Amino acid sequence: MSLQTLFRETLFNSETLLGRVLELVLLVCILASVLESLLDSVPTLHQDYQAFFGWSEYGFTFLFTLEYGLRLGTAERPFRYALSFFGLIDLVAILPSFLGLFVIGFPSLSVFRALRFLRIFRILKLLRFSEEAKELLVSLKSSFRKITVFLGFVLILTVIIGSLMYFVEGSEHGFSSIPQSVYWTIVTMTTVGYGDIAPQTALGKLLASAVMLLGYGIIAVPTGAIVQGLSQSRLGFGPPSLGHCCPNCRASGHDADANHCKYCGTLLGQESGLPGGDR
Amino acid sequence: MSLQTLFRETLFNSETLLGRVLELVLLVCILASVLESLLDSVPTLHQDYQAFFGWSEYGFTFLFTLEYGLRLGTAERPFRYALSFFGLIDLVAILPSFLGLFVIGFPSLSVFRALRFLRIFRILKLLRFSEEAKELLVSLKSSFRKITVFLGFVLILTVIIGSLMYFVEGSEHGFSSIPQSVYWTIVTMTTVGYGDIAPQTALGKLLASAVMLLGYGIIAVPTGAIVQGLSQSRLGFGPPSLGHCCPNCRASGHDADANHCKYCGTLLGQESGLPGGDR
Amino acid sequence: MSLQTLFRETLFNSETLLGRVLELVLLVCILASVLESLLDSVPTLHQDYQAFFGWSEYGFTFLFTLEYGLRLGTAERPFRYALSFFGLIDLVAILPSFLGLFVIGFPSLSVFRALRFLRIFRILKLLRFSEEAKELLVSLKSSFRKITVFLGFVLILTVIIGSLMYFVEGSEHGFSSIPQSVYWTIVTMTTVGYGDIAPQTALGKLLASAVMLLGYGIIAVPTGAIVQGLSQSRLGFGPPSLGHCCPNCRASGHDADANHCKYCGTLLGQESGLPGGDR
Amino acid sequence: MSLQTLFRETLFNSETLLGRVLELVLLVCILASVLESLLDSVPTLHQDYQAFFGWSEYGFTFLFTLEYGLRLGTAERPFRYALSFFGLIDLVAILPSFLGLFVIGFPSLSVFRALRFLRIFRILKLLRFSEEAKELLVSLKSSFRKITVFLGFVLILTVIIGSLMYFVEGSEHGFSSIPQSVYWTIVTMTTVGYGDIAPQTALGKLLASAVMLLGYGIIAVPTGAIVQGLSQSRLGFGPPSLGHCCPNCRASGHDADANHCKYCGTLLGQESGLPGGDR
Repeated sequence: MSLQTLFRETLFNSETLLGRVLELVLLVCILASVLESLLDSVPTLHQDYQAFFGWSEYGFTFLFTLEYGLRLGTAERPFRYALSFFGLIDLVAILPSFLGLFVIGFPSLSVFRALRFLRIFRILKLLRFSEEAKELLVSLKSSFRKITVFLGFVLILTVIIGSLMYFVEGSEHGFSSIPQSVYWTIVTMTTVGYGDIAPQTALGKLLASAVMLLGYGIIAVPTGAIVQGLSQSRLGFGPPSLGHCCPNCRASGHDADANHCKYCGTLLGQESGLPGGDR
Repeated sequence: MSLQTLFRETLFNSETLLGRVLELVLLVCILASVLESLLDSVPTLHQDYQAFFGWSEYGFTFLFTLEYGLRLGTAERPFRYALSFFGLIDLVAILPSFLGLFVIGFPSLSVFRALRFLRIFRILKLLRFSEEAKELLVSLKSSFRKITVFLGFVLILTVIIGSLMYFVEGSEHGFSSIPQSVYWTIVTMTTVGYGDIAPQTALGKLLASAVMLLGYGIIAVPTGAIVQGLSQSRLGFGPPSLGHCCPNCRASGHDADANHCKYCGTLLGQESGLPGGDR
Repeated sequence: MSLQTLFRETLFNSETLLGRVLELVLLVCILASVLESLLDSVPTLHQDYQAFFGWSEYGFTFLFTLEYGLRLGTAERPFRYALSFFGLIDLVAILPSFLGLFVIGFPSLSVFRALRFLRIFRILKLLRFSEEAKELLVSLKSSFRKITVFLGFVLILTVIIGSLMYFVEGSEHGFSSIPQSVYWTIVTMTTVGYGDIAPQTALGKLLASAVMLLGYGIIAVPTGAIVQGLSQSRLGFGPPSLGHCCPNCRASGHDADANHCKYCGTLLGQESGLPGGDR
Repeated sequence: MSLQTLFRETLFNSETLLGRVLELVLLVCILASVLESLLDSVPTLHQDYQAFFGWSEYGFTFLFTLEYGLRLGTAERPFRYALSFFGLIDLVAILPSFLGLFVIGFPSLSVFRALRFLRIFRILKLLRFSEEAKELLVSLKSSFRKITVFLGFVLILTVIIGSLMYFVEGSEHGFSSIPQSVYWTIVTMTTVGYGDIAPQTALGKLLASAVMLLGYGIIAVPTGAIVQGLSQSRLGFGPPSLGHCCPNCRASGHDADANHCKYCGTLLGQESGLPGGDR
């Protein structure tokens, strides 16, 4: 086994012992570097531990650059890796620090904040370590259309209600413009309720009550739709089932752990090569 | 094909290429006009871009009037279109601007706000472009009765609890009248929680805690009912199942695991080539 | 038909035309009287329309007393009616007004408020008119145990977390005692969030974040349990099904509108006397 | 029956009459002692009833120590009981009071608060009395992984959004550091909404609206997953179905509409007298 293959195996495949150790080291480094970014943004801590934060930042950048270089160098298709989701994340994780070197002469507050914001994207490197996170993303994607339609519907509703509240309450009571009223409506309908803007007139309060009850009542709709979607795929978070129907009576809807058709008793799961109970 | 037929095809049927282009143009116009209405209501922007907003408003009104005229002129049954949901929306979308011409002499703030509120109804024209929105409306309508009963029940509860809080806290702590107390109860039970009114006495806080836990606990009831409703109709948001209908009485809506038509008892699922259990 | 029978038919049975008319009149009276109680509690309105509110209150009390007397006099079992849920509600609806006559000499604010609170119970008379409300109550009762256990669990959690927050934040930051801290925890965990008390220290905010995420995450548990309960009873809001199983293959789980067994095609619903599709 | 057996039967088995009486006495004592801890922490009550609280605390400690001693002495495997969940809870319930005796010389506020916080763990003794609480814990444990993955996902999202808000709003508007911004994002996304920190700029409000709608929309995801999980285990909160198991392989967990065992294919439902479809 060549050195490149060894590196590749270790970096891209966590099945090997060395791969597991490296995975753990990387996980700790990512968490530590995110924590450092968070704490470095607290003014008092930034003042007191400036040197420590600076040096640890150089260290993390060196490590992640090394990791990126090794992945790029040992990947079977370097270009494809570089353009993949995780390849881009790995690049974004080191870019802000290098950018920081160029702008070190004029560390304005705004640039400083922007760099810190970009650095925090390192947290997305965590997604590589969780199989469940990928499943959750698949699950979110499958209900994406339904949630989008629902939120679009809620948005149209909030624009209309927001305009009505602007008409009813007016700028004297904090509803200074329609966008501001729409903002209030979203805050109210999603049951967040900051309280920085609140209706003052009787009619406004009546309308607000209706908005709250509406928001409280229709939250059930997307839930229902998602449950329905999940229950049709009979799966929860996992990938969609591929056919799993009875070879005798063609009935589907069997549980994942069923060996026999629940309607006719025929043995299930031989057709696609993999036994039914194994899924 | 006569000119009228061409217009009608283009306006009412987005299957043709010209229809798709027009649809896209209309979509952009609606969004731009809604955005203009929103931004025009911000005092500072209104001051600075008064001329721009005025001319673009004239432009949008001209466009939507043209659209309304063409739809009215080319529709197979003009009267029926005029009284349909989208016909009324199309009318409401242009009316406020024409009304604005008449009241231009006395632009009081209240009239000004009312016109802007009416103009925002243009956003409902968006509903024409989304098949899913119509499905969502159908889905909402099907659970409308359950949500209404639930909200009516919540309303009775809030009136009783609101009166109790009025009795317990009194006007010294912001619960100045029963309607005000009911408003507070709705704000609390729907978990919005502005914080403009909050209980001060120990008994009031105890009662408020009970209200919150109640609101947190019973939100599950409408969700359960809607999920139940969706799962009975086997629909979710998606399009209704097409093929799976009884070869004898043509009734649809059978469960995925049905072997026989539940209405006439005929064996299901042979007609469309794919067995009933395969769905 | 005797006069007593006529009255009884009209009062307790809304199937007859006269019964329907009376029902509508009563419905309007109840709503008007509740509205009057609500508005009478607003100080400014009370000042201005004192006489009007007083006389209308006398009117409603006279009407409801008449109704109560007639129901009591014509009921087949007067004693049983008097002790039934609606009998007690009918009594409570008129009692406060009669009590008001005795304490008219010393109309202290507290007594005044107590009477108004009692008067509002008239709203419960509305429950008589809605079949769905009764179904919803049945549905609530069936999931009552689950909701109670869940809320009990949440309560234990809030007591522990509240004590921890009292320890962490202390009375300097508004967490003046454990009950106060528990109140804050309930406000936070149910996602109400007034903002009158909020953590100030870093550790307190960290803990508060955990409480919020916990509250956001576990709301799904009662929903899941209720959906599960509803889906087992295959019913939604309605009463539990009484045996609706196929007379041939004894399979159950048929839809409410099924005439034939979906598994074997046998005609359903002859056994219990009422046809299956009628439910 | 020896005295030890009698004690053991009474303490660990609530089936006997004496066991039920003792259970009730214990339940009342636990509730009273928790209530005492809560009220003792209210400064005004602590001042006025110091002696009463002190003596009742000694009383409860004596009682719970006696209970702990008896359980330890009569348990079949004392060591195993001592290390069990309830054994540890029983120990934690008395430990703070004994610790209090040692630190009585220096009753600093911080130590005082810590002891009270520990004492509140007595409330966990309540869990012993509720079968449903154990079932709920099992139900929570079964969906623990899904809720954890979901909350981890939400946490990554809040860190990224929090950093973005810190960049957009800056410390002038209360978003003084990234941890503070993340705290605000959690408060907003879980729809708690204190209102102590709120966006001031137009861009910040736009972003906040997106966060709220996101939080409102994705709450449906864990609910769907839990419902799915519950519906696969066919359990809800209730006791597992008893009779409906395969007469051949004794496997249970079959669907209500199953005719054949899904594991071995044997025809189901003849054994217990009631046909399989009757459940």
